[in-house]
Amino acid sequence: EEVNQTENGDSEDLTVMLADLATVDNSRERASKLFQWLISPIPAETFFRETWEKKPILVQRKNPDYYKGLFSTAEFDRILRGEDVQYGVNLDVTSYTNGTRETHNPPGRALPYTVWGFYKSGCSLRLLNPQAFSATVWNVLSILQENFGSMAGANIYLTPPGTQGFAPHYDDIEAFVVQLEGKKHWRVYKPRVDDEILPVLSSPNFDEVEIGEPILEVVLEAGDLLYFPRGFIHQGDCLPDAHSLHITISSYQKNSWGDLLQRMLPAALEIAMEEDVEFRRGLPLDYLTYMGVQNSDLDDPRRPKFLSQIETLMKKLASYCPVDAAVDQKARDFLHDCLPPMLTTAEQASSVKGARTRWECDQVMDDSSDISTRTRIRLLRAGCARLCSDGEAVHLYYTTDNSRVYHQEELKSFEVNTELTDAVEFLIHSYPKFVTVGSLPCTSTAQRIALAEQLFEKGIIHTSEPL
Amino acid sequence: EEVNQTENGDSEDLTVMLADLATVDNSRERASKLFQWLISPIPAETFFRETWEKKPILVQRKNPDYYKGLFSTAEFDRILRGEDVQYGVNLDVTSYTNGTRETHNPPGRALPYTVWGFYKSGCSLRLLNPQAFSATVWNVLSILQENFGSMAGANIYLTPPGTQGFAPHYDDIEAFVVQLEGKKHWRVYKPRVDDEILPVLSSPNFDEVEIGEPILEVVLEAGDLLYFPRGFIHQGDCLPDAHSLHITISSYQKNSWGDLLQRMLPAALEIAMEEDVEFRRGLPLDYLTYMGVQNSDLDDPRRPKFLSQIETLMKKLASYCPVDAAVDQKARDFLHDCLPPMLTTAEQASSVKGARTRWECDQVMDDSSDISTRTRIRLLRAGCARLCSDGEAVHLYYTTDNSRVYHQEELKSFEVNTELTDAVEFLIHSYPKFVTVGSLPCTSTAQRIALAEQLFEKGIIHTSEPL
Amino acid sequence: EEVNQTENGDSEDLTVMLADLATVDNSRERASKLFQWLISPIPAETFFRETWEKKPILVQRKNPDYYKGLFSTAEFDRILRGEDVQYGVNLDVTSYTNGTRETHNPPGRALPYTVWGFYKSGCSLRLLNPQAFSATVWNVLSILQENFGSMAGANIYLTPPGTQGFAPHYDDIEAFVVQLEGKKHWRVYKPRVDDEILPVLSSPNFDEVEIGEPILEVVLEAGDLLYFPRGFIHQGDCLPDAHSLHITISSYQKNSWGDLLQRMLPAALEIAMEEDVEFRRGLPLDYLTYMGVQNSDLDDPRRPKFLSQIETLMKKLASYCPVDAAVDQKARDFLHDCLPPMLTTAEQASSVKGARTRWECDQVMDDSSDISTRTRIRLLRAGCARLCSDGEAVHLYYTTDNSRVYHQEELKSFEVNTELTDAVEFLIHSYPKFVTVGSLPCTSTAQRIALAEQLFEKGIIHTSEPL
Amino acid sequence: EEVNQTENGDSEDLTVMLADLATVDNSRERASKLFQWLISPIPAETFFRETWEKKPILVQRKNPDYYKGLFSTAEFDRILRGEDVQYGVNLDVTSYTNGTRETHNPPGRALPYTVWGFYKSGCSLRLLNPQAFSATVWNVLSILQENFGSMAGANIYLTPPGTQGFAPHYDDIEAFVVQLEGKKHWRVYKPRVDDEILPVLSSPNFDEVEIGEPILEVVLEAGDLLYFPRGFIHQGDCLPDAHSLHITISSYQKNSWGDLLQRMLPAALEIAMEEDVEFRRGLPLDYLTYMGVQNSDLDDPRRPKFLSQIETLMKKLASYCPVDAAVDQKARDFLHDCLPPMLTTAEQASSVKGARTRWECDQVMDDSSDISTRTRIRLLRAGCARLCSDGEAVHLYYTTDNSRVYHQEELKSFEVNTELTDAVEFLIHSYPKFVTVGSLPCTSTAQRIALAEQLFEKGIIHTSEPL
Repeated sequence: EEVNQTENGDSEDLTVMLADLATVDNSRERASKLFQWLISPIPAETFFRETWEKKPILVQRKNPDYYKGLFSTAEFDRILRGEDVQYGVNLDVTSYTNGTRETHNPPGRALPYTVWGFYKSGCSLRLLNPQAFSATVWNVLSILQENFGSMAGANIYLTPPGTQGFAPHYDDIEAFVVQLEGKKHWRVYKPRVDDEILPVLSSPNFDEVEIGEPILEVVLEAGDLLYFPRGFIHQGDCLPDAHSLHITISSYQKNSWGDLLQRMLPAALEIAMEEDVEFRRGLPLDYLTYMGVQNSDLDDPRRPKFLSQIETLMKKLASYCPVDAAVDQKARDFLHDCLPPMLTTAEQASSVKGARTRWECDQVMDDSSDISTRTRIRLLRAGCARLCSDGEAVHLYYTTDNSRVYHQEELKSFEVNTELTDAVEFLIHSYPKFVTVGSLPCTSTAQRIALAEQLFEKGIIHTSEPL
Repeated sequence: EEVNQTENGDSEDLTVMLADLATVDNSRERASKLFQWLISPIPAETFFRETWEKKPILVQRKNPDYYKGLFSTAEFDRILRGEDVQYGVNLDVTSYTNGTRETHNPPGRALPYTVWGFYKSGCSLRLLNPQAFSATVWNVLSILQENFGSMAGANIYLTPPGTQGFAPHYDDIEAFVVQLEGKKHWRVYKPRVDDEILPVLSSPNFDEVEIGEPILEVVLEAGDLLYFPRGFIHQGDCLPDAHSLHITISSYQKNSWGDLLQRMLPAALEIAMEEDVEFRRGLPLDYLTYMGVQNSDLDDPRRPKFLSQIETLMKKLASYCPVDAAVDQKARDFLHDCLPPMLTTAEQASSVKGARTRWECDQVMDDSSDISTRTRIRLLRAGCARLCSDGEAVHLYYTTDNSRVYHQEELKSFEVNTELTDAVEFLIHSYPKFVTVGSLPCTSTAQRIALAEQLFEKGIIHTSEPL
Repeated sequence: EEVNQTENGDSEDLTVMLADLATVDNSRERASKLFQWLISPIPAETFFRETWEKKPILVQRKNPDYYKGLFSTAEFDRILRGEDVQYGVNLDVTSYTNGTRETHNPPGRALPYTVWGFYKSGCSLRLLNPQAFSATVWNVLSILQENFGSMAGANIYLTPPGTQGFAPHYDDIEAFVVQLEGKKHWRVYKPRVDDEILPVLSSPNFDEVEIGEPILEVVLEAGDLLYFPRGFIHQGDCLPDAHSLHITISSYQKNSWGDLLQRMLPAALEIAMEEDVEFRRGLPLDYLTYMGVQNSDLDDPRRPKFLSQIETLMKKLASYCPVDAAVDQKARDFLHDCLPPMLTTAEQASSVKGARTRWECDQVMDDSSDISTRTRIRLLRAGCARLCSDGEAVHLYYTTDNSRVYHQEELKSFEVNTELTDAVEFLIHSYPKFVTVGSLPCTSTAQRIALAEQLFEKGIIHTSEPL
Repeated sequence: EEVNQTENGDSEDLTVMLADLATVDNSRERASKLFQWLISPIPAETFFRETWEKKPILVQRKNPDYYKGLFSTAEFDRILRGEDVQYGVNLDVTSYTNGTRETHNPPGRALPYTVWGFYKSGCSLRLLNPQAFSATVWNVLSILQENFGSMAGANIYLTPPGTQGFAPHYDDIEAFVVQLEGKKHWRVYKPRVDDEILPVLSSPNFDEVEIGEPILEVVLEAGDLLYFPRGFIHQGDCLPDAHSLHITISSYQKNSWGDLLQRMLPAALEIAMEEDVEFRRGLPLDYLTYMGVQNSDLDDPRRPKFLSQIETLMKKLASYCPVDAAVDQKARDFLHDCLPPMLTTAEQASSVKGARTRWECDQVMDDSSDISTRTRIRLLRAGCARLCSDGEAVHLYYTTDNSRVYHQEELKSFEVNTELTDAVEFLIHSYPKFVTVGSLPCTSTAQRIALAEQLFEKGIIHTSEPL
């Protein structure tokens, strides 16, 4: 665990920050810069080399405004007033008192009158998908997801003074705790055993006696950041004199090498069985008489022979692994998890969302020029579309029609004709450069235009100038 | 392909054969002998070394009575008359004329009046599970399954003179075509390509033009045997002067090394992810930008590094393979597929099926002695019960309550308490020897008796003398 | 309640009885005679007028052999030995001790060894569908169902001396308790309240304190009969000196006028809405403001007007009742519930089940003559087939392919072409007379023959002489 | 059919109208006034007596601004730009050319660029649930539903000049066609046969030859209204010189006496079977032999007797009809169909939606007084809550948590304790008067306050003054 202290004053306000970022041409670069801002002053490169997935780290800024504009309790109140926040779906009311963790959600819509009633009585509030209600959170997460190559999620936690809302536990995600208002007293504990390092699943709630001594104890103040990897037990409580509002930004759920292998192994075996007769040969007639748990203590010479054949096949199996296809399975999951991009005004104007066709004076007014071979186009974001093959057909998957609500939409895609895959790949690899429609490697101008129109209508590309 | 000719006269009638086999003490030995009889005069050892899964083989006996008693059209008629044979479930009516394969099943029960009507009009009849209707077929298959360690199934085919019932095709099982009556002209063809050697799935119907020249062409006569491995295309038709009745005995469906790996890989990965943090580490932040189908042509130094890490993990994975547990999964499938044992009179008398408790003179008469420590017991068959562990508990799975109808019953099992597993294992490994109840490695006499009673009541064991 | 005593000696043995019945030409007459024998010496006409659905009645015969041959504990033992009796499905093991009713079914097949073990320890045995295991019970019930026009079911109860197997309760069926062996002490109680007269559902188990004093108390001996209507509470226990075996024959479950109305009302309303615009007119704009439970105490003049309109429509509805169509729905349910007819040797020979086509000497031997216009045919049973219309098409439903196991088969039927319905109706109404195929009111000889062949192949008709 | 012409100039603008309506104290009165405005100058009383469900009627106003503010194509464009309109869910693209009706919906979100593309190519656009996107349409429909006592729905239709979007057909709802922009040529035809008067289901698309001559032919201009009952065939097309935008407001789908009977009959029979033994008596033993379709021509004296018994029971059944309970079933369906009320600023301030509790200066600021016995309350709308009994418990169902999207939410309700039903009923029947919490007929002050708080928190009531 490490502590980093920054001088008051070197902060940048988030609104300015995001406006600046909007001018960064490459969305991946934009993502890096935003992440750098999040963990500043630690250099991202250092962070990923020394800290990420390894240990907690603390940044104390003495600058309560560093994260200002990201979220506030005032906005929480505004959301409750104006949006359809449902208990249990978007908001949890919780308490942790004398070692007992409870949830107090009534059914139905969460109105300020009842929510603030709970708060006054000492309950903590957890807003589950702030990106659906706050444009800024949406914007920040949709940028950060490009940095992680894995879904970036968030929860907001509001805790009354002198209370604690959750029991000690560890999660299955990398957690960035960003203190927005007030203060919170945090204790972080090491994974208890090797099996709980970088765990696959979250833990149940722990009793104090199960978790040992904290390796990090701190009072987080507005503007501070606390990071800890999955598997590190943690608990936070409010001092008697201040409430706390923080957002936890998370990523890397089920994003391990093992998760990739899980997608790859069935396909690897299927290929091996198709291509290699050794995998299709019958098992020995009598294998059930010396293999199996009831025979595991037998001292039978056929056992090592059988095991050695398994080993041989496992070695062969490695050579049949369809790694790129398995990565595409993970990529499709990620594209489905992604937030849709939040467009700048300029992007809006140069994409289908802002195309100038509109109803006016009792008729459709159409100021747009058509897409021509000279029109210059590029993807709206580095990662907003991806070509994947399922072995038979090639599809283009894209995030631009995703919803701000997790998985509210099916993953969107369309089949890409074999003769068009080169053009789509060219477009993808050209990013962030704009290329003319005429330069697409297709066999005819008509094809080039048709492809560009299709991508434009689905919001996957935008043009260098508004049409 | 090979042809074996035997002299008329050296046959044994099946009834005698089966009565003799009933005296063989060890069910596995019994299974070997029956299989040897099936393929005689080819030595089984030779057969499995040189022919099995490799090439067709033919045995011409010039002894029409060799397989007599196994099944006959007269018995077919008797079954139609007395049993509930349903079209589509137990019986198919088919034809193959001018290259067109048709099925003519009406709905409902197949009565002789209509079935023989179809036969007279030139249709072939396929009886789908003769073991449910014929005690002899049941007996033969239930013995043979112990030889294969894999389900032994059978279909009966009755074909009118001068007709063909099925199009050329290959199957996904090892096939033993046993000619019972009349004659049939067979043509067998090599797998067309390497991928169709020992195939995982059966083929569709082929056109003549797709299959090339036969490698074996023969007229099978009663008493003859034709074997061919899965993947060998075949077709049979009747000569104008004789009908044909044959039974095809089959085994080794989905019983390959690959099928075992399919069961093993998910468990291997789960273990690896639990025990080895390397599998739980996050994927590289940027892997989606250089891996995947759309990046497969990229010349990026991170690609070989990524692939090499996959290779490293695959090697490690081999060391986490729970081979015995995976074999037990296969074993459970086999136990569920198994026919129940067909008991001899002596076995009946010494097992729960024939226990002497009965109703007589208005009361329960009970001549049986109770099971005592001196009672000598053994499994009813070598493979009729098996101890398997699912990682948490140990269960004993058994076939003695299976039905003659495929999967009509759920696989039966019960949990075996940890302190009794040694006793059950002792009993299993003692087969074919009888052991006294008193010799079971339990901690108390009460436990020994209780275990023996439980096994006796479920029909898993029998006693050396009737109780 | 009534008691009837018969002199020893006037009994007829069941086997003789059933052989005699087989010669009765009309299956409905056969059913009446068998029912008369069941309740002899009470005349059936008197029984249905004075007793049925009204009160219990007792027949004491002092003739232990009167029902001999129907079922015995020896046959129970034989069934356990030879048939696949499953605990919970075909057999219940129960006890009722100190006011506590328990079921002791283990899983799996019920073998004599364990069943008699339960019996010896004081448990009662209930065999749930004896008609599936005993040909005599099947025969008796399949005849009786034609008397009731409603499914006839049965359970067998075997109770050890000095025990009781069931708590006091009432059933939802008319019950004929036929004492087969030993003795049983019975107590019968009146329905407790008017709502429990002829109830729709069976009762839960009662405590002694809930049921008052018996109106009938008797020791039933072999040969005796006890009848009581649904809703009469009853309990039976064994004297210390004798076991008891009885069969309870039941009928009239869900066979009330109300059950018929339930089938009829939705169709009646559908017709009314199609044919009468009054049913399609909109409800009053403001009806929700004065109707409904919250307004039921309002003194609003619109309420009586609304209720009166409902009354008017209910009166009109009566005129749209499709009574015959609703009866056909009930009839279809009954046909599905029916046991298949048990054929006499002569019926077998003259129907498709015994048609002489058979396999002999390596070919199909066909001694049958074909059906011709001179062939004389009739239904196999008065009620084995029924023409029903669903408004669009007419189907013939039939019982001859039913199973002895309740609802194991779907209800069988086939569509009858409009031009053939007269012929089928003619055949149905001609029963029990045989009519020539030539006399069927069809438009061509070909049609007559085709119809007769179809009915013959499905086992619905038989011929006056074997074909 | 009738034609009504109004003089230009006597219109009221909708915004003014709705602001005026907001001051009407009783929501039912408000609903009447809005409906009167809709069909003005026809008096509503005359309309419902002479026209509703009987014949089409036309109002020609020569005042293009009469309905101004309800909806416009400019708003359509705004919605496409800003809201998640999905093809097939919220928007249909259709055409009817040369007698062929087609739907052209692509998958996914409907963006202006593509929608206007379809429009320019001659397709019609149908916006399916404008109340979810337009606050004015929501407001208008949520008021009108109180006038109809049945769901008020709407579709918007935009048709390019010189085209037709739909084939001739009739609907299953009462239709008010409100012309908003441009002109449309309409033809209306009488129901073809009596069975199609006030039909239960909509028709398929008709060919011109099937529908005869129109009884009404007119060019509807902005500000005009056309009403026709369900069952009247209609088609509309655009003149070459003008586009058309209209909204069709609909109601009374499945709201007939027959629909009420459908809910009532099963319950009526259930009650009759419980209370009246005549319904529980068994059917005649032999009824299957003379009743049913196959016996419908029999001249059997038992048939009229059977039919007469059915008639008797049907008469009795009328006396068991639970009319109020059945109305409550319809009421519950209606409450589920209802749009939530759209609150005025004053209603917002005096209900839970605007309760003054809010987050400010880092804490919950609570200016509200608590509910006391002197607080004066009433329902938010006459019909926003309803007490219904399901025979066992009493529940209060309410519309205030409904969604603007049809059935997006489950119908909301909570159980009302027996001792509180009087108080809830008192409150319901007091509307539109405010009553003090202290006057509620409960047994304690605590109960009064608790009930008022519960109703307040669910948004069912508001207070005379903001808390």
